[in-house]
Amino acid sequence: MIIIMERDATAANIQAVTELLKEHGFKVIVHEGDVHTVIDALGDKTTLSPGRIDAMDGVKKIKFIREPFRLASRDRQAEDTVIEFENGVKIGGANRPVSIVGPCSVEDDYDGLLQVALAAKELGCQFLRGGAFKPRTSPYDFDGLGEKALKYLARAKEETGLLIVTELMDSADLDMVCDYADVIQIGARNMQNFKLLKSVGNCNKPVILKRGPASTIREFLLAAEHIMYNGNEKVILCERGLKSFDNAFTRNLLDISAIPVIKKYSHLPIIVDPSHGTGQRYLIEPMAKAGLVVGADGVMVEVHHNPPQALSDGKQSLSIPQFKEVFTRLNTLIDTLHLEKSMAISCVD
Amino acid sequence: MIIIMERDATAANIQAVTELLKEHGFKVIVHEGDVHTVIDALGDKTTLSPGRIDAMDGVKKIKFIREPFRLASRDRQAEDTVIEFENGVKIGGANRPVSIVGPCSVEDDYDGLLQVALAAKELGCQFLRGGAFKPRTSPYDFDGLGEKALKYLARAKEETGLLIVTELMDSADLDMVCDYADVIQIGARNMQNFKLLKSVGNCNKPVILKRGPASTIREFLLAAEHIMYNGNEKVILCERGLKSFDNAFTRNLLDISAIPVIKKYSHLPIIVDPSHGTGQRYLIEPMAKAGLVVGADGVMVEVHHNPPQALSDGKQSLSIPQFKEVFTRLNTLIDTLHLEKSMAISCVD
Amino acid sequence: MIIIMERDATAANIQAVTELLKEHGFKVIVHEGDVHTVIDALGDKTTLSPGRIDAMDGVKKIKFIREPFRLASRDRQAEDTVIEFENGVKIGGANRPVSIVGPCSVEDDYDGLLQVALAAKELGCQFLRGGAFKPRTSPYDFDGLGEKALKYLARAKEETGLLIVTELMDSADLDMVCDYADVIQIGARNMQNFKLLKSVGNCNKPVILKRGPASTIREFLLAAEHIMYNGNEKVILCERGLKSFDNAFTRNLLDISAIPVIKKYSHLPIIVDPSHGTGQRYLIEPMAKAGLVVGADGVMVEVHHNPPQALSDGKQSLSIPQFKEVFTRLNTLIDTLHLEKSMAISCVD
Amino acid sequence: MIIIMERDATAANIQAVTELLKEHGFKVIVHEGDVHTVIDALGDKTTLSPGRIDAMDGVKKIKFIREPFRLASRDRQAEDTVIEFENGVKIGGANRPVSIVGPCSVEDDYDGLLQVALAAKELGCQFLRGGAFKPRTSPYDFDGLGEKALKYLARAKEETGLLIVTELMDSADLDMVCDYADVIQIGARNMQNFKLLKSVGNCNKPVILKRGPASTIREFLLAAEHIMYNGNEKVILCERGLKSFDNAFTRNLLDISAIPVIKKYSHLPIIVDPSHGTGQRYLIEPMAKAGLVVGADGVMVEVHHNPPQALSDGKQSLSIPQFKEVFTRLNTLIDTLHLEKSMAISCVD
Repeated sequence: MIIIMERDATAANIQAVTELLKEHGFKVIVHEGDVHTVIDALGDKTTLSPGRIDAMDGVKKIKFIREPFRLASRDRQAEDTVIEFENGVKIGGANRPVSIVGPCSVEDDYDGLLQVALAAKELGCQFLRGGAFKPRTSPYDFDGLGEKALKYLARAKEETGLLIVTELMDSADLDMVCDYADVIQIGARNMQNFKLLKSVGNCNKPVILKRGPASTIREFLLAAEHIMYNGNEKVILCERGLKSFDNAFTRNLLDISAIPVIKKYSHLPIIVDPSHGTGQRYLIEPMAKAGLVVGADGVMVEVHHNPPQALSDGKQSLSIPQFKEVFTRLNTLIDTLHLEKSMAISCVD
Repeated sequence: MIIIMERDATAANIQAVTELLKEHGFKVIVHEGDVHTVIDALGDKTTLSPGRIDAMDGVKKIKFIREPFRLASRDRQAEDTVIEFENGVKIGGANRPVSIVGPCSVEDDYDGLLQVALAAKELGCQFLRGGAFKPRTSPYDFDGLGEKALKYLARAKEETGLLIVTELMDSADLDMVCDYADVIQIGARNMQNFKLLKSVGNCNKPVILKRGPASTIREFLLAAEHIMYNGNEKVILCERGLKSFDNAFTRNLLDISAIPVIKKYSHLPIIVDPSHGTGQRYLIEPMAKAGLVVGADGVMVEVHHNPPQALSDGKQSLSIPQFKEVFTRLNTLIDTLHLEKSMAISCVD
Repeated sequence: MIIIMERDATAANIQAVTELLKEHGFKVIVHEGDVHTVIDALGDKTTLSPGRIDAMDGVKKIKFIREPFRLASRDRQAEDTVIEFENGVKIGGANRPVSIVGPCSVEDDYDGLLQVALAAKELGCQFLRGGAFKPRTSPYDFDGLGEKALKYLARAKEETGLLIVTELMDSADLDMVCDYADVIQIGARNMQNFKLLKSVGNCNKPVILKRGPASTIREFLLAAEHIMYNGNEKVILCERGLKSFDNAFTRNLLDISAIPVIKKYSHLPIIVDPSHGTGQRYLIEPMAKAGLVVGADGVMVEVHHNPPQALSDGKQSLSIPQFKEVFTRLNTLIDTLHLEKSMAISCVD
Repeated sequence: MIIIMERDATAANIQAVTELLKEHGFKVIVHEGDVHTVIDALGDKTTLSPGRIDAMDGVKKIKFIREPFRLASRDRQAEDTVIEFENGVKIGGANRPVSIVGPCSVEDDYDGLLQVALAAKELGCQFLRGGAFKPRTSPYDFDGLGEKALKYLARAKEETGLLIVTELMDSADLDMVCDYADVIQIGARNMQNFKLLKSVGNCNKPVILKRGPASTIREFLLAAEHIMYNGNEKVILCERGLKSFDNAFTRNLLDISAIPVIKKYSHLPIIVDPSHGTGQRYLIEPMAKAGLVVGADGVMVEVHHNPPQALSDGKQSLSIPQFKEVFTRLNTLIDTLHLEKSMAISCVD
């Protein structure tokens, strides 16, 4: 931690800061510059909240040397985290990127869901996704079927063997969702719902954590840290687009570079969601490819048996024929990338 | 609702859209332009999700005429909402702007809290705020005393008569928080935690709803709509700063213009929080003034008996002497504005 | 300058960095942390571009202690810069905030311009503004009358005594614009047109420099630095709104807090433009007030004799009767603030 | 054009709007909704500035049906623009994506430049880039060698046959730059320097137009429109990253989705610049790949013979050995994509 003092900080201000640091076991070095005094503090930040230093008289700014996330950091664990499922499917590391597909929300039409699941199975996808509880910006929109949806997903799993991904919105529903889901999804709007993060931290299911639309990479990894800190290290990150000043053509701005950045600073797997990330059907294929070539461990795509009839997100869903066409091409790319990955061609660093 | 078709939309595409609209009782007018066909649909949007139209083949874009919030809209209620408390304090309309002050989080030092409360009382403030449950970006930071904090707030209320504002983070704590609080705060990170919005929608306490750091004004008013739709119309909005590309000097970018915009489109009261809105002690006074001159119904400011010892947000808190100095000046401005308001000088529209 | 090395930086990497620093006369201190090595370099950054260090192997990040602007910095000049005109008008410091009004672009209707100028004179404004050369996002829009407009402005100056503010878009026009203008305006889109900054740096007229819609405060002050570095220290900054993810209700997001921030870090005067800053007529009055209460040295407002006929920016212009109404109230506020300023009531810092 | 009237618009307001529209030859249809009146105006927007309507009393908002760019629009020209050079190199359409490499700025070391050029030639790149005039945020940084740099580029062209790309910053330098350059670059900060756009619009060299860091796609295409409108249709767009709230890990946020969006709405070629787009050497390869898989017509990458000695942008430059390694892999990807492109596999739309 480096503390930069204001140009008009007094000797007493400087002393107060250095004393507090020393009390907390920091090694302190003071540099008197010609404009600002700078204090280097070496030690363990957990014993003293930096906010306390920041609030002291004469302190201009604090700069940190180490990233604030620890459990999620590659400094702690150099090798990639790999999450393995009972049926042998694996996410992360040198494994083949996975595909997670299905409707935005599960609707009261089991046959429609099954059609999607069967097509997913046929295309070699590993996961079926579908919302039982839907966060909706407006209270006037459809907000999910609840447990009935979970039962439909369970039936589709039985018929196809696909693993189930579904969103948890309320910690009160945790046990119910765990009964049906293989992976629990935390939605973008709940990325900093710390009660919810804590509750999935206390369960033992893998968690897909979606990046908030205005979250920095650091905040995103700290949200993962909340889950890991509470005991669950099986976190799969998901990039799904940011708020931007330009929303004339896309719903969000998909941050493709976040994928290789996170790969460098964290060992956690990360997938890409081009449906929410763009809000446009015609952008799903190119942006899925973009995510995959930069190293994503999987893609999550919305597929609906009849998009114009979808109760949510139809505009960004593929129909079943479109899905087949797109994933035939995506599978070719995934195979090529998997081959390269297993041959361990590294990038310039 | 106006539907703009793609330039290459077929006659069948256009017919499919118009038929679905008519089925749902819309009056439909089709304009064939030289490039795009445009469909006007007049009717009640609640019977048909616009997303369904948006997902149909050949549809380029939908444009809405009416704002999507209804209960919160000034179109529905022309006069300002005024929220009145048992002790006669009122927020909104032509009433004197209120002051809500106190520490970010209530710490285990009742005397410190009481000092702040007594100073607040002396300066004519109406509300004491303090967090019992704190959302923290990092799991390594202090996250609140819980019910003990609520008991401290209750004691301070007894001694000073100040009304209590405190944050609810989990719907499971609703009853407990209601036992102590006069106003329930929903934090910025929970602005789209719809389960939480629903739960406070079902209680009868006034709610301060803080704007999410990347929320549009429309999303903000729709979040208020969630609370109102569930039965609680006593919503107080709070502008507290947005994420910005420039955070070298301030923590957030306080959107002062949101206050007069919201006053124009909604009847709900709105207050300003310059502590979180800037993250800098020296900006609290000028930005509180800015919020007040554009019409805010109150200010919320962090005050701590010893900011450098604060367990959270010390950098943006006033000490008690600073608080007295700042609020003496703010009270003069509030008195002037109140006088003008009651004399009903209107702005150019 | 503090250099943070990558966790896997080698001893050779560290040595290469320290040697280069020493060659350039820096005093160097190396701290070996348990994760990262940190190098403190004390000395004059002008002799060595930090980019060279940043590009060396093993360097993670460079952090600066001093602000990069120097001539514009309050560290260099503690007292406010005051710019004085031949007729005694002054901008900056404890002087009464000034008013700069007029149409967005000067149109081919001298009488209309004169009506605005006469009203401005009557309301005590000091400056008449009007564009002769207009930057337009689309090539299909009106882009100004050129020298004819400058002649109209000169005539209006003769009849009213108002000082003239007009925009320079091309350094080739500098001499012509200087013949007519008392203040040269650099538009927001040209804030980083360094050739233009250099050319006004070489003239001796005061310059109004508008903040680019996506410029940080640091970039803004560095743009001012370009002008000052080339010899012209008479720079007046102008906050006029930023790009934002929410443009449903306003054209830009006016950054009111930038005004007190810049007042703290720079000695240059700063004014506020609520017309461009919001794009909405009804927001001009409240946002002008917000800018003034936080310390702006002036306001710039668009006034047109017939806004619905304006060839540009009519939506954000006041008509003459509206202008009179608004400025009668603004003048009351300006008088109060001026009184307070001259009584030197300071803010909590 | 659709005009939405305010809820309290009077009959006279509505009549004034419809009359003005009719005067300008628009076909007008008025819909009286239960809240808002909506006016449809069909006709040619060039005869009447929409700003005039927008400024009329009672008008809430105007919505446009057609995109404002015309010459750049795919509505006008369905097939891709292809730009061909004297030596047979082509950019755009189904042609093989091109590579443009070289140092950020040309320095006073011809041998260094030649080394880069020879390596570029060897790797099959078509263009050598290098700045003679450099826009610099701070006046204290190196701003280019001027004509000497242009002469160095010409010599390198002679020795290697590579085509030359260099930036124009001032229209006064146009003739000089045209004497040496095969492609003129307009930098991101000058994207809305309309004088400069006009000047390159009047020359007959192809232009690379870089997207401004806070420009919407619409503003970007309108900037291209300025060049085309002035007579030069040989415009190559370049995506190079946007301002973002998260700059802890990258300098800009590279908007990969802009590439397929622009491909859909415009016929102009577009390339990607992962050096400026990320500011990080390790991100150049993955982000170049991301740009290419979504359809970019080329990549522009900074290569320097000795990045730690570079006078600008060393952090985001590849050294020559790194360049060879990265482009060997990129060439494999380019070959694959080119093959697919020529086999005309289309995406789901």
